[in-house]
Amino acid sequence: MDLNADLGEGFGIWRLGDDEALLDLVTSANVACGFHGGDPSTMRRVCAAAAERGVAVGAQVGYRDLAGFGRRHIAYGFDELRDDVTYQLGALDAFCRPYRTRVRYLKPHGALYHAAATDEVQAAAVVAAVTGYDHELPILCAPGSTLAQLAVGAGLRVVAEGFADRGYLPTGALVPRTAPGALVTDPEEVALRAVRMATEHTVVAVDGTVVPCPVASICLHGDSPGAVASAALVRAALIDAGVTPTPFA
Amino acid sequence: MDLNADLGEGFGIWRLGDDEALLDLVTSANVACGFHGGDPSTMRRVCAAAAERGVAVGAQVGYRDLAGFGRRHIAYGFDELRDDVTYQLGALDAFCRPYRTRVRYLKPHGALYHAAATDEVQAAAVVAAVTGYDHELPILCAPGSTLAQLAVGAGLRVVAEGFADRGYLPTGALVPRTAPGALVTDPEEVALRAVRMATEHTVVAVDGTVVPCPVASICLHGDSPGAVASAALVRAALIDAGVTPTPFA
Amino acid sequence: MDLNADLGEGFGIWRLGDDEALLDLVTSANVACGFHGGDPSTMRRVCAAAAERGVAVGAQVGYRDLAGFGRRHIAYGFDELRDDVTYQLGALDAFCRPYRTRVRYLKPHGALYHAAATDEVQAAAVVAAVTGYDHELPILCAPGSTLAQLAVGAGLRVVAEGFADRGYLPTGALVPRTAPGALVTDPEEVALRAVRMATEHTVVAVDGTVVPCPVASICLHGDSPGAVASAALVRAALIDAGVTPTPFA
Amino acid sequence: MDLNADLGEGFGIWRLGDDEALLDLVTSANVACGFHGGDPSTMRRVCAAAAERGVAVGAQVGYRDLAGFGRRHIAYGFDELRDDVTYQLGALDAFCRPYRTRVRYLKPHGALYHAAATDEVQAAAVVAAVTGYDHELPILCAPGSTLAQLAVGAGLRVVAEGFADRGYLPTGALVPRTAPGALVTDPEEVALRAVRMATEHTVVAVDGTVVPCPVASICLHGDSPGAVASAALVRAALIDAGVTPTPFA
Repeated sequence: MDLNADLGEGFGIWRLGDDEALLDLVTSANVACGFHGGDPSTMRRVCAAAAERGVAVGAQVGYRDLAGFGRRHIAYGFDELRDDVTYQLGALDAFCRPYRTRVRYLKPHGALYHAAATDEVQAAAVVAAVTGYDHELPILCAPGSTLAQLAVGAGLRVVAEGFADRGYLPTGALVPRTAPGALVTDPEEVALRAVRMATEHTVVAVDGTVVPCPVASICLHGDSPGAVASAALVRAALIDAGVTPTPFA
Repeated sequence: MDLNADLGEGFGIWRLGDDEALLDLVTSANVACGFHGGDPSTMRRVCAAAAERGVAVGAQVGYRDLAGFGRRHIAYGFDELRDDVTYQLGALDAFCRPYRTRVRYLKPHGALYHAAATDEVQAAAVVAAVTGYDHELPILCAPGSTLAQLAVGAGLRVVAEGFADRGYLPTGALVPRTAPGALVTDPEEVALRAVRMATEHTVVAVDGTVVPCPVASICLHGDSPGAVASAALVRAALIDAGVTPTPFA
Repeated sequence: MDLNADLGEGFGIWRLGDDEALLDLVTSANVACGFHGGDPSTMRRVCAAAAERGVAVGAQVGYRDLAGFGRRHIAYGFDELRDDVTYQLGALDAFCRPYRTRVRYLKPHGALYHAAATDEVQAAAVVAAVTGYDHELPILCAPGSTLAQLAVGAGLRVVAEGFADRGYLPTGALVPRTAPGALVTDPEEVALRAVRMATEHTVVAVDGTVVPCPVASICLHGDSPGAVASAALVRAALIDAGVTPTPFA
Repeated sequence: MDLNADLGEGFGIWRLGDDEALLDLVTSANVACGFHGGDPSTMRRVCAAAAERGVAVGAQVGYRDLAGFGRRHIAYGFDELRDDVTYQLGALDAFCRPYRTRVRYLKPHGALYHAAATDEVQAAAVVAAVTGYDHELPILCAPGSTLAQLAVGAGLRVVAEGFADRGYLPTGALVPRTAPGALVTDPEEVALRAVRMATEHTVVAVDGTVVPCPVASICLHGDSPGAVASAALVRAALIDAGVTPTPFA
């Protein structure tokens, strides 16, 4: 099982999350590429630290929206989005080179993650960016999403991720953030859910039913208070259960 | 002899210069990388058109200053500048890939060009970006500049460029822009000077002396009225003189 | 009848449209405020030239999206949009002061214009920005739009604008841009339609019916080839018909 | 004696310093205006909180350089700098209006603060922005600086500020940051120095001599660990010494 988290999301003087601590816990680092967060020096620092630890570097690509941190939907056309994603991919790859590694996968950020899950134009633009850049590059995204479907259709490898700290519907979809049960806040329970995802490939839905959860990576969150401690608990619980966190890429 | 010009310097809805016309004249395209000008879709368009014509693509890297078009000196530190240059290099390279080419050289833009000509910190940062990215990548710059010296010292290939439309001092340096004779405005004379640079490797200085001008590329300007016509005249004159414009990279 | 046009939409080195020519034709200048286009020095230049000619200055406020020229819908929340609009209002007003004038009205730009025409949250945010800034400031927008309704509800003055170069449906709404008859391209016909709007307060719809068009301002476009000539024709035709173009504000 | 501090220096999702805590200690808030830090919603929030507490709002204007936080010198020309400063002044003023206050003074930030202390062009541009905007607006800056001199020459009010946590030379100038004694780190000593500045208008220089320090405001720093506690100590010590912190504006 892979463990992924968002990293390098500061900008200039501003910091966000604890990159150093998370790098000791994850096996895949979704590194912000400068459009919603991240700046060149931060990108270099995170790539260097990830390479040192054997953590895989992924391009966490987002909308061009520093003020909104890439969390506001933007009605991009196909060409512009493909090109903005391509630009970010190449920029991040440049910081892998000095550390003899490279970008190993792509994961969309924030509003782009959500748009690409259902919007065919935006999903297709992300897929086109990856196929134009490197046909071998996997996309890390939600299973069953439009992005996953179009990526598979284009011959790309798709890696499905799960969220141990989010509630699931009996359909296997996430509970919407505004509905009851959207978030699992007890760190112990989060760790148990991660172990279940890794060992039984299932999740207990909000109604108590056990549903399949065929994911190859678990997403850890690093930007809330207690997040790093909770992530550490997940990692420790997986290892206790005999699961060795390993990069998928 | 190579002919280079700045291209892809629009941004979003805004255009600058006539990229299409210049691409038919030059052998090397200095493509803006998004920090002082240029946006991802423009970068893709220029890379595609350059690849189609066999024009070499170079990274025209600049300060992060859209509002000032990279023409204002910024007191960057070494790390920040190295990283901003690295970022731009990778971003442009990403748009070469779909067209089965790659970035073939780097040329600094505007205030960075001038700073790197004399400032050791900024010149060293540009050199560090190139050596970290690709040790084979030549730097196109002014002969004798600090950038040229440091690049050679780091084992990089340096390609010297000349300006057929600029006046030269007997020392071989350019006449400062504010001094008399800084600009050669007669297109016929510009073309003659280009031919002399290409065939005799000399230039006539402002005092009438003939001085060595050992350049491998001539820089054409495309953003002023009549610029494209003047560039076309240079190209035609070179061909008439038996010089075939060829990319240095 | 007032004549309005978008002005000051360049950014840094880049120009868009012919500000000087349009300033001689319009009575109200929608000046870009730096978020989708426009920069401080351009804003100052346009405010100075407008003040000199007795042209009213309006704040042409847009999304924070230079790369997309404010033409891509952004899913702003209420607070962020209110605050981005407020910021732009104040910034433009600062450039009116040295020329002993002030911002006389607000007009949303591009995707914000369209969003505020139907989206209650975005329309309310624009209204909140104006009421917080200056309760006397009119909003220039499409008659019948959500923005117009909410503005009137908040006690603001609304000025309706018409488009002499756009087709109208029998309902009084514009023909969608993708439908036949969306654009009126013959400059003579555009001028005739402007005169009819000004003198009879009607427009001939695409089906030939004459429908009411109770507008107090006609929007002229300046960024396409021939636009300035067409705008000049409209102005001349109005004057010939005895209508003196006069600022509404 | 006035107490000033930099506030509202976050941007988007990113925070910097503890605005709320500082607002309870200072009498003048230097509010970032969006060019080096600060965003419209942060500006509104700080203006509202300042107005509520009777804290004077000042425009902390900076270079257009989010990535460098306005700390890198930029070789602005006169017009561009005057206009960038004007823009920021107006933008901040817009957020004072809803809270029935206004911008009460201007203080340059970071590299602009330093440039305007010695560079005549940049100092003159700041002065021109203020005189064009509001001739009554004081400038808060270092005593004896070029900015102070030009401002006085233009008929503006200048308010001199001192730094209780910085070492002073016998000349009355600050010890350069790279020299020994540049920083006073003991909070108790900082508080004592503030009291001396407020009551005796002197400071003890690095060589032990007592030199005049005719300042009307003391600058508190809020962005380092322990900064708020140290600022609180300064305020308490002043009150103990019978000095009531009061806005100068």
